[in-house]
Amino acid sequence: MSNAICEALDIRYPIILGGLSRIGRAPLVAAVSNAGGLGLLGAGSWTAEEFREQIRETRNLTDRVFGANIPGHAEAADELVETAIAERLRVMSTSAGSPRRFTARLKEAGVYVIHVVSTVAHAMTAEKAGVDAIVAEGSESGGMTSMEQVSTLVLVPQVAEAVGCPVIAAGGIADARGLAASFALGAVGVQLGTVLMATKECEVSPAFKEMMVRARETDTYLDPRGRAASRIFKEDFTKTALQDLKETSSPTVPDLDLVQTGVGQATGMIREVRTVAEVIGSMVSQAREILPGLIMNLPLGDAE
Amino acid sequence: MSNAICEALDIRYPIILGGLSRIGRAPLVAAVSNAGGLGLLGAGSWTAEEFREQIRETRNLTDRVFGANIPGHAEAADELVETAIAERLRVMSTSAGSPRRFTARLKEAGVYVIHVVSTVAHAMTAEKAGVDAIVAEGSESGGMTSMEQVSTLVLVPQVAEAVGCPVIAAGGIADARGLAASFALGAVGVQLGTVLMATKECEVSPAFKEMMVRARETDTYLDPRGRAASRIFKEDFTKTALQDLKETSSPTVPDLDLVQTGVGQATGMIREVRTVAEVIGSMVSQAREILPGLIMNLPLGDAE
Repeated sequence: MSNAICEALDIRYPIILGGLSRIGRAPLVAAVSNAGGLGLLGAGSWTAEEFREQIRETRNLTDRVFGANIPGHAEAADELVETAIAERLRVMSTSAGSPRRFTARLKEAGVYVIHVVSTVAHAMTAEKAGVDAIVAEGSESGGMTSMEQVSTLVLVPQVAEAVGCPVIAAGGIADARGLAASFALGAVGVQLGTVLMATKECEVSPAFKEMMVRARETDTYLDPRGRAASRIFKEDFTKTALQDLKETSSPTVPDLDLVQTGVGQATGMIREVRTVAEVIGSMVSQAREILPGLIMNLPLGDAE
Repeated sequence: MSNAICEALDIRYPIILGGLSRIGRAPLVAAVSNAGGLGLLGAGSWTAEEFREQIRETRNLTDRVFGANIPGHAEAADELVETAIAERLRVMSTSAGSPRRFTARLKEAGVYVIHVVSTVAHAMTAEKAGVDAIVAEGSESGGMTSMEQVSTLVLVPQVAEAVGCPVIAAGGIADARGLAASFALGAVGVQLGTVLMATKECEVSPAFKEMMVRARETDTYLDPRGRAASRIFKEDFTKTALQDLKETSSPTVPDLDLVQTGVGQATGMIREVRTVAEVIGSMVSQAREILPGLIMNLPLGDAE
């Protein structure tokens, strides 16, 4: 058995931590790599110095491969790319901008480049720019996304058909069913954000994790921000949840931060805060259980 | 091998034609049932007399089982339900309204009742009302839908977890990958709209079919209509497409009708106008090809 992403990156499972600016720090990144996936530091808001510290801290916590995500709009984007190369990261993810900007430089340094897209046209541009793999991210995802609002189910098969490189599905995936469905859609793996934020190793506040557990599938919306959009909790849900939380415990971060933190539609599937190893382990073992039986849904007719 | 929907409805494949008001007429409905799926007449805009004529015309074209969809907002909804019972339709689909309104009456007459929902809460209400099966329809779908905008990938596994009856996935499904992914998400079958509108048997205008073939995944949007929404082609796309079509052929229906006709996000996956038998046949045979290999995406690690 072989998987293009697992072989290229020397990881056990085709499960990637999405680039979470501010949130994707050493403990979470190392936990994902230690659990057999690929951790990515969320370098978007950092200086080169902060990035270097996080890389070194991650190396203290894992001897497995990990990388980082740099969004095109990051203030220190060029310096961050040079830092990643100087620190010899083997894999980098780029997003929210043209893949042409950094791919040649990263490839020249021998780095494996993954680029995040949310339309078929951008996937084709990324392949032409020479990226090694493409994350096809549907509008269910948290964080900054395109206003085009193409869902994961519609986007992934079309990207997989349009490009020759490996495709990774993202947006709305939180469990074994989402992983199995991603394979069915033509992806070789998944990128996870929300479900890995709802883990013990993630450094978002306990109040935000509690909100992810409480939220139903209808409690987020895409908030337009100029030419892009960010999926966040609805105002009504946030108000009620914060009121409840204040009565039972004390939120440890300012309310405003909670309100503006991106969260995916997959929040409706989160039932409890687990460890990263539990999230990834159960996703893989349950996918192995359900995949062989799926064909049983197609009865063989009498005439066949 | 068994499939709850195929056994209950005596159909060969768990593939249902969604209720398409005005568009779901006898030739299309009979073609779907003849191809091994379940055709549903789109009765929403009809009088009881028109509905009776369509039922009889369908019976002239197929001896397989078929049914009809009645949305709660249909002007003649109560009469349509009585007509379906009088004409001894074995299966009915209800949508866009409370499942409590018609379920008891239909069940009392021995009719198999399928109800369409777009949130987990509505699925639970429908199960309590006694429906036999639930269609979980994500926001990718064409036609009237909820403003909640929950995608198929996020909705289906949560509905499948919340209810005990069979769940059918709808919204954004147009090929074998979508069918296989629906099984992975916990559905026992799929309901199709857009891809079955782009068929030779469907009576929408050739110009509209050509627009579905041309459209990319980014060419539709959800247009708010009071408390609901309808997915239609974007204005820019419609303008350009109609201009092109006028130069090469002559659209046979008024432009305004085309602009307001619902279309799902799956339109981006449609490459040509085929027969219904080709759409359903290739969906089933390709799903049988891809399903057994999906497990290969999960490599067995050295330590396992």
